[in-house]
Amino acid sequence: MAQVQRMSRLMVKTLRDDPADAETLNHKLLVRAGYVRRNAAGIWTWLPLGKKVLDNITRVIREEMDAIGAQEVLLPALLPKEPYEASARWDEYGDQLFRLKDRKGGEYLLGPTHEEIFTLVVKDQVTSYKDLPVMLYQIQTKYRDEARPRAGVLRGREFQMKDSYSFDTTDEGLAESYRLHREAYQKIFARLGLDHRIVSAVSGAMGGSASEEFLAPAPAGEDTFADCPNCDYAANTEAVTFPLKPVEGAEHPAVEELDTPDTPTIETLAEHLGVPASATLKNLLVKVDGEIVAVGVPGDREVDLGKLGEHLAPAVVELVTAEDFTGRADLVRGYVGPQGLEKVRYLADPRVAPGTSWITGANKEGKHARNVVAGRDFEVDQYLDVVVVEEGDPCPKCGTGLKLDRAIEIGHIFQLGRKYADTFQLDVLGQNGKPVRVTMGSYGIGVSRAVAALAEQTADEQGLCWPKEIAPADVHVVAAGKALQTELALEVAETLGAAGVRVLVDDRAGVSPGVKFTDAELIGVPKILVAGRRAGDRVLELKDRRTGEREELTVDEAIARLSE
Amino acid sequence: MAQVQRMSRLMVKTLRDDPADAETLNHKLLVRAGYVRRNAAGIWTWLPLGKKVLDNITRVIREEMDAIGAQEVLLPALLPKEPYEASARWDEYGDQLFRLKDRKGGEYLLGPTHEEIFTLVVKDQVTSYKDLPVMLYQIQTKYRDEARPRAGVLRGREFQMKDSYSFDTTDEGLAESYRLHREAYQKIFARLGLDHRIVSAVSGAMGGSASEEFLAPAPAGEDTFADCPNCDYAANTEAVTFPLKPVEGAEHPAVEELDTPDTPTIETLAEHLGVPASATLKNLLVKVDGEIVAVGVPGDREVDLGKLGEHLAPAVVELVTAEDFTGRADLVRGYVGPQGLEKVRYLADPRVAPGTSWITGANKEGKHARNVVAGRDFEVDQYLDVVVVEEGDPCPKCGTGLKLDRAIEIGHIFQLGRKYADTFQLDVLGQNGKPVRVTMGSYGIGVSRAVAALAEQTADEQGLCWPKEIAPADVHVVAAGKALQTELALEVAETLGAAGVRVLVDDRAGVSPGVKFTDAELIGVPKILVAGRRAGDRVLELKDRRTGEREELTVDEAIARLSE
Repeated sequence: MAQVQRMSRLMVKTLRDDPADAETLNHKLLVRAGYVRRNAAGIWTWLPLGKKVLDNITRVIREEMDAIGAQEVLLPALLPKEPYEASARWDEYGDQLFRLKDRKGGEYLLGPTHEEIFTLVVKDQVTSYKDLPVMLYQIQTKYRDEARPRAGVLRGREFQMKDSYSFDTTDEGLAESYRLHREAYQKIFARLGLDHRIVSAVSGAMGGSASEEFLAPAPAGEDTFADCPNCDYAANTEAVTFPLKPVEGAEHPAVEELDTPDTPTIETLAEHLGVPASATLKNLLVKVDGEIVAVGVPGDREVDLGKLGEHLAPAVVELVTAEDFTGRADLVRGYVGPQGLEKVRYLADPRVAPGTSWITGANKEGKHARNVVAGRDFEVDQYLDVVVVEEGDPCPKCGTGLKLDRAIEIGHIFQLGRKYADTFQLDVLGQNGKPVRVTMGSYGIGVSRAVAALAEQTADEQGLCWPKEIAPADVHVVAAGKALQTELALEVAETLGAAGVRVLVDDRAGVSPGVKFTDAELIGVPKILVAGRRAGDRVLELKDRRTGEREELTVDEAIARLSE
Repeated sequence: MAQVQRMSRLMVKTLRDDPADAETLNHKLLVRAGYVRRNAAGIWTWLPLGKKVLDNITRVIREEMDAIGAQEVLLPALLPKEPYEASARWDEYGDQLFRLKDRKGGEYLLGPTHEEIFTLVVKDQVTSYKDLPVMLYQIQTKYRDEARPRAGVLRGREFQMKDSYSFDTTDEGLAESYRLHREAYQKIFARLGLDHRIVSAVSGAMGGSASEEFLAPAPAGEDTFADCPNCDYAANTEAVTFPLKPVEGAEHPAVEELDTPDTPTIETLAEHLGVPASATLKNLLVKVDGEIVAVGVPGDREVDLGKLGEHLAPAVVELVTAEDFTGRADLVRGYVGPQGLEKVRYLADPRVAPGTSWITGANKEGKHARNVVAGRDFEVDQYLDVVVVEEGDPCPKCGTGLKLDRAIEIGHIFQLGRKYADTFQLDVLGQNGKPVRVTMGSYGIGVSRAVAALAEQTADEQGLCWPKEIAPADVHVVAAGKALQTELALEVAETLGAAGVRVLVDDRAGVSPGVKFTDAELIGVPKILVAGRRAGDRVLELKDRRTGEREELTVDEAIARLSE
C-alpha cells in the first residue's frame, strides 16, 4: 500500500528566496522546495522529498537494466591504488581523484568510475566463453574532486551513478551489448520524461558509433552540442567533422611576397591588408612528444587544443615557448608559412583543402605571402578536425548550418574494446580450447544529475513540476485550514493511499492557505487536490500542476479520477 | 512479476575449497557460494546473489522504519572535518577514521557514523517544537579503518549500515522514539530470522536503559555477553554489575603484619602464604588526569581498564610508570595496601564490600598485612564495577551463575541526550516562545554484518541455508541434465516466475547433476525442485533445504505448493 505522507510530520522546509550561491534553476528550486541541502562544496544531503525522487529514478533504471539481462552488483567505493596504477588512471585523473592512505600507509582512491575493478571481478568469476556475454551494473556513490563543483547536484563531488559494463568474446557481441544498452537508455530517459538527444561523442575518424552521449538540452548544461535543424545529425561539438573537399580547376596566380611590417597577429595582418581574417592561414606551432609540429587553420578560426590532443593521443601536445625557437632559423615567430617548412610536420583543418589559396607568413620577419595554394605550394601531412565548432558550420551529413545548444550529459555509452582486458589480461577459454581476449563496453547514467536535468527541463515560474513517474507523490492534497477542510483532506488522502495512490497531504495547522498553495506549486507534485471553500459539500478542487487547469469534483469523482 | 534467474547466465562461480584466508563460517561460505568477493582487506564486492540478499535485508529494514514514521534521507559519506572537530571525534576516532584532503587542501573524513551531520541538517530544517519529533534514517555506506578487518563481511572497512536519529524536545519524547526503534528492531530481526538477544550496553549506574545492543549469538562473534540461565537478564560483559553487600556482624582479628620477602605479585604472595589468590586484595595504581589513584579488586580478578575508563570519562586513565613513584615514600611498589594510603583516592570493586577482610600490602618493602578489613582499616572512596566478568559470576538480578557467550552485534540503540545538540546549539522555539534544547537518540543496524550473522546462524555442513524472506530466491530448480529435464525445469521455472515466485533455475549444460545438487545445497535457497529421473512423467522431486525432507510431486502439485 502506498504511503500517505503528512506535511505536518515530513521534514520539509520551503524557502521563499533563492539561496545566495545558486546560479542555476535546479539548484535554486531543489533547495527552496526542500529536496536537497548542501553539506560542503559539491557535497549534498538528499532530504525526504529528494530521496523519493532519487529512488523513483533508480527504480526505473533498475527495471530497464534487469530487462536487458544485466545483473546488479555492488562494488566498493574505496579502492586500492594498484589497479588504477596498472591502467595509468591513478596519474591521468590528476587532481580529479580523491586519494587517501589507510592506517598502514596503503594507498587508496575513491572510485570515479570502475572499469578496472569490474575487469578484475570478471577475471576472477568467469573462465569460459560459455560464461559470456555478461552485463553487470551497480547504482553507487561516485567521487570526483571537481575544480568548480557547481549548479547544485548537477555537478557534485560525491554523486550517484548507474555504471554498467559488458563483457563479450567478439566484436559482434560487444556491438549487441552496446545496442541493448542504447535501447535501454532510450527507454529509461523516455520513462523519466527527459527530453534528450543521442550524439556522437568522438569524431567519425576514430570509430563512429563506438561512443555516444545522451544529452538533455538545458540552458544550465555544461556541454555544447551541434544540432542540425534540417536532418537528424547531432554531435558533441568535439565530434563534429568538416568534409574535405579539394577545390579543382581554379587558376591561382603565383606566390607573391608582401611587405607587412608589425603584423605578427592575424588581426594586425588582416587590417593592414584590408582582407577578412578568413582569407588568411594561421599556423599554430605545438610540440607533439617534444617535436615541433605546425597546425594550419583559417585565420578566423580557433584551434581546439583538447580536440587536437585527443586526435594525437597518446602523444602529449604542448604549446611552444620562446626557447623552442633557439637555433631554428626556419621558424620566424609570427611570420610562419607552410610553404617554407620542409623540416616541420604540417597538420591542417579540412578547410585548408587542396586547391585553396591563402595569405600566410613568408617565413621572413615582417613579410607575408599571398596566393599560397595548398597542394601546389605546400603539402598537408595530415588533415584533422581541430577547430572550435561555431554556430552555422555546415552539417557533415546534409550541409545545413548547425545550431549550437547547451545540454546536460545524462548518459554515456562507450565501446571500450580490449583496453582494460589487455591491461589485466582478461581472457576466457574459447570454443577451440585457446584463450580469447575479452572485449568490453562501459555505460553510465548520472542518477543525481538526472534529478537536476529533470528539474531544469520541467520547472516553471511557480517551481518544480515533476513527471508522474518521478514525482515524490502522485497527488498533493491541500487542507485549506479549517477543521472541516483538514478532516476531509485526511479522509481523501487515506482513501487514495489505500487505493495505491502516493499522497502528500498538507495538514499543517497555523499555516495560511496561501502559503500552502505556494508550497504545493513549488514542490511540484503533478496533481493538487484542494479541500477548500466547498469542503462542507464534499466538493474538492483538482488542479493540474503543469497546465494550471482546475475543476471541481465530488469526493467520489476525485478518488475515481486519481485512482485510475 | 518476479524474475527467473538462469544459472547459465548468472555470474556465480562456486568453489569447492574454502578460501585460504577464511577463518569464519560466513566468510568461507559466502565466498564459496559466490555471494561476495574480496577487493582489499575489509573491502568487498557484492556479487549478484549477495546483492539480492543485501537488498532483501534493506527492504525489511526500510518497511519497518517507514512503519514507525521514520523518514528516509541520504547523507554524504565524504564529510568536512569541522563538525567532527567540534564534537572532538575527529581526534577521538584515532586511526579508525579515514581522513583525506581535497585538491585545495580542505580536510575531510569518510563517515563512520553521522550524529554530527544529522544534527546540522536538523538544525537547518527544523525551527519550532511543532516540527518535532522527527526520526530520520538512511541506509548508507560507512567507513572504519579497522586495525584487523576480519571474518569476511562481518567486520569490513567499508560496509552498509542503517543509521537513524531521533529528535525530541523532552526526555519523555526521546524515551518514546527509543521505544519505537526498539520495537521496530525486534520486528526487523524477527523477520530476518535472526536469533538475537537485547542486552544492556552500559552499566545500570550510568542510566539503565539508555543504551542497548542487539546481539546475534554466534561462535564467530567478536562480542562476549553475559546471559542468565535462570532469569531474563542479559548484558554486554562491560555492563554487568556486582551487588554491593556489606558484611555485618563478623568479628575480625586485628591487622597483623607478615614477613613476605620477594612476593611482589599476587601469585608469589598466595604461594608463599598458602592461601588462594581470592583471599588477597590487589591494588592497581593508575593515573586519572595525572593524579595517582588506587583500584582495589580481589587478587584473582583482572581489572578491565576499558570499563574503568568509561566509568571515569571524560577523565583520562593511564597506567603508572616507575617515574611516578619518585618522591612518593607512601607508595611501595608491589606492597601497596589501602590501609596506609591517606593521600591516595581509593576506588574498589563491590566485592571489596565493607566488612570483608583481606591480605594485602603493608606499604613496606617485603611486608604484607592480614585481617585488613574494609570500613575498619580503610575506607573506599568510590565503588565501581571494574573487574573482567567471568563465567559463573552472579546474575545481578537473580544471583544465578552467568553464562558467557560469543555474539555478533547487529544493532545498537542509544539515548544520546543533548550531547550533540549542545555542541551544535540545536534549539527549537518552545511552546512558551523560548528556545528549547533538543534531545537525540541514535540507532544503528549493521546491514552487511546482518548478512554475515545470518549466514553464521543458519548455515549447515552443506552450505548456506537462508530464511525465506532473505534468500536470493524462493526456489532453486535443478535440471538434472538431459534435454527433457532442462525443458521441464525451464517450463516450471517460467510458470512459477509468472506466479510471483522468485526462481533460480540451474539450466547449465555440461555440468553434472552431482555438481548441480552440491551447488544448490551450497547456495542455500530454501526449496530445491529437481527435474530428474521422472521428468518424462512430469514428476519432480521437492527437497526442503533445511530439513532435507524430499517428496515427489507432479508439476501441478509442485506449482501449487510453491505458489502458496
